[in-house]
Amino acid sequence: MVILGIDPGYAITGYGVLRYKNNSFRVLDYGVVRTSADSPFPERLLAIQQALIELLDLYKPDCVAIEELFFSRNTTTAIGTAQARGVAIVTAASANLPVYEYTPMQVKVAVTGYGRAEKQQVQEMVRILLNLTEKPNPDDVADALAVAICHAHSGNRDSALAVGGYQ
Amino acid sequence: MVILGIDPGYAITGYGVLRYKNNSFRVLDYGVVRTSADSPFPERLLAIQQALIELLDLYKPDCVAIEELFFSRNTTTAIGTAQARGVAIVTAASANLPVYEYTPMQVKVAVTGYGRAEKQQVQEMVRILLNLTEKPNPDDVADALAVAICHAHSGNRDSALAVGGYQ
Repeated sequence: MVILGIDPGYAITGYGVLRYKNNSFRVLDYGVVRTSADSPFPERLLAIQQALIELLDLYKPDCVAIEELFFSRNTTTAIGTAQARGVAIVTAASANLPVYEYTPMQVKVAVTGYGRAEKQQVQEMVRILLNLTEKPNPDDVADALAVAICHAHSGNRDSALAVGGYQ
Repeated sequence: MVILGIDPGYAITGYGVLRYKNNSFRVLDYGVVRTSADSPFPERLLAIQQALIELLDLYKPDCVAIEELFFSRNTTTAIGTAQARGVAIVTAASANLPVYEYTPMQVKVAVTGYGRAEKQQVQEMVRILLNLTEKPNPDDVADALAVAICHAHSGNRDSALAVGGYQ
């Protein structure tokens, strides 16, 4: 199974592509999509969509995993991030890929065994689990890889779609 | 010039399609896209995208107008709305359409002449300006028509893209 993990943002979107087979991981790719603050907002969203479409074409993942977005103190940032998240989800859904959503706590538990783990612990465990020589950087990459690992370790991979919390 | 105004939401997205020529409006269409709370979130976003693509195919608008999203007390709703807004913007941008963003105050001033107008005043002025027999309902439709009117009345229609406030 190939999983594309995404950590969306309008300035930086992190991604990680993992193959999970026989309880072991192979890292196919990871990185970030950066968009320029000088570009109009619609163009930034379009750049994110185009980069994700290229990843889908290249790696043909079986599914997409993405973190749920919770309250942020900086609401302007949260609203921008949420718009990028909408783009990521609809891009995957347009390609007929199932999209699985996990809470930050589910991701932390899956990766570190502890729901209140610090960012650095998550990064270090991602490194160990994926047998990387260095901690994945920036945070957005580590978070994208972490949610992909979370999905691999979740029963969700064989069952129905996770349903978001929006009513 | 044909303008598609959009008031995005993950449960209800309002839209209005106006033709603006010689300082007068002709209403081509308006309505809402509703998505079911029983559907997984990715499917709801996909349904919004597909409905908007149909509108673009049908009316071939020259541009899209959409309100900027500001802080909402209900952050969960704001985050969901923002995701739907991202989908609306990227759908228009994918079709090579310019997307113009206006603040709620700009829309109110354009439609009523007063930046702190009440919702009902906006609805009534939209009805008068568009020569409709009844107030457009629900709010989402009135708001979509209002932002389209705002764009028609704005200098933006002849100039560069409005740039969103996200850095």
